[in-house]
Amino acid sequence: MSDFIPTERTQVKRLPKRGKYDRETVHAILDAAFLCHVGFCVEGQPYVIPTNYGRSGDTVYLHGSAASRMLRTLSEGMPVCVTVTLVDGLVLARSAFHHSVNYRSVVMLGTARLVEDPKEKMEALRLFTEHVMRGRWDEVRWPTEQELKATTVLALPLKEVSAKVRSGGPVDDEPDYSLPVWAGVLPLEMLPKQPIADPQRKADQPLPAYIKNYSR
Amino acid sequence: MSDFIPTERTQVKRLPKRGKYDRETVHAILDAAFLCHVGFCVEGQPYVIPTNYGRSGDTVYLHGSAASRMLRTLSEGMPVCVTVTLVDGLVLARSAFHHSVNYRSVVMLGTARLVEDPKEKMEALRLFTEHVMRGRWDEVRWPTEQELKATTVLALPLKEVSAKVRSGGPVDDEPDYSLPVWAGVLPLEMLPKQPIADPQRKADQPLPAYIKNYSR
Repeated sequence: MSDFIPTERTQVKRLPKRGKYDRETVHAILDAAFLCHVGFCVEGQPYVIPTNYGRSGDTVYLHGSAASRMLRTLSEGMPVCVTVTLVDGLVLARSAFHHSVNYRSVVMLGTARLVEDPKEKMEALRLFTEHVMRGRWDEVRWPTEQELKATTVLALPLKEVSAKVRSGGPVDDEPDYSLPVWAGVLPLEMLPKQPIADPQRKADQPLPAYIKNYSR
Repeated sequence: MSDFIPTERTQVKRLPKRGKYDRETVHAILDAAFLCHVGFCVEGQPYVIPTNYGRSGDTVYLHGSAASRMLRTLSEGMPVCVTVTLVDGLVLARSAFHHSVNYRSVVMLGTARLVEDPKEKMEALRLFTEHVMRGRWDEVRWPTEQELKATTVLALPLKEVSAKVRSGGPVDDEPDYSLPVWAGVLPLEMLPKQPIADPQRKADQPLPAYIKNYSR
């Protein structure tokens, strides 16, 4: 797979070593996370809204209520920034200054396209469900025509994209290595806990394996 | 504590029941998380950048390299949006349409102020460290004058703020409750794993209790 070409707007300038532009890295981060933060401007005021997404190749899909201000704004072709961030750990240095966070992030710039073709729209809805939980789509009731109408789906082509990755241990100033301070990384991971069955269920359904063994 | 007053820009319009404007809720979300997404506009293009923050009362502090474009832009008084999101679980309904995510988020709008007073700046740096890991500041080497100079600190007063919270199980359409589909919540939590000591340490330091027992 080819690399994304960094532009003036996506080239990582601060700590350029952390910048990544290859599709493998970008796709892998997008597939590991499921939450993104969507940024848009209205009359000079930025708004940043958390939401879910799906991915197919070099297209990221966003969705929400047809009544959502964000989706209405973006479907008019306003510039958007979609950012995905995974936190991997706290980097504990010997000096306060060199504390850091291990993370993987992707920043996507562009304009989104309203998905109107019913087939692409349904496929995007499948992607949202499967992105959050692989195996779920085939078990649940699929969207009705009315639900499809109530949902706006936007497609953002991956064009101006960069990833940024920090990994590994702390990097301290040479004299600080002799300080009597524990230094290292505290890895963090988003983990599933015990599933909670809906008390309103009317039939006692077994817990599917894809939930029991959930991991990202 | 009094409530924040919702404005036209912060009032939660979609699913207004999820909107919260009380300081307890807002502060609790800000204290539970440590990653925020900062949104700003440059020539009509929004940018959303992940970063850390600290909080003191109704002030949120951001920081970074003095060379950072984001911090330079914001210190000029450009409007900013800072969003903090915690994911609490996947809400698995019987229909694809009613799938959801349990989350807590805060959206803060305003303009940031450059922190120039050295005392406030040092205190903000203490807050960043303590926000990520309580107990850490007293053990590490504190910032030198040079490090302080290399760091830009911005203060965002909490004025136009709203929180949004979704919790609980799935809400399905009545006919769907009889479908043979497991429904419920898969709780998710960011958890620490085994700390990894820096192999470059020169003395064998014991692991402090605040790392061993880390939780948010």
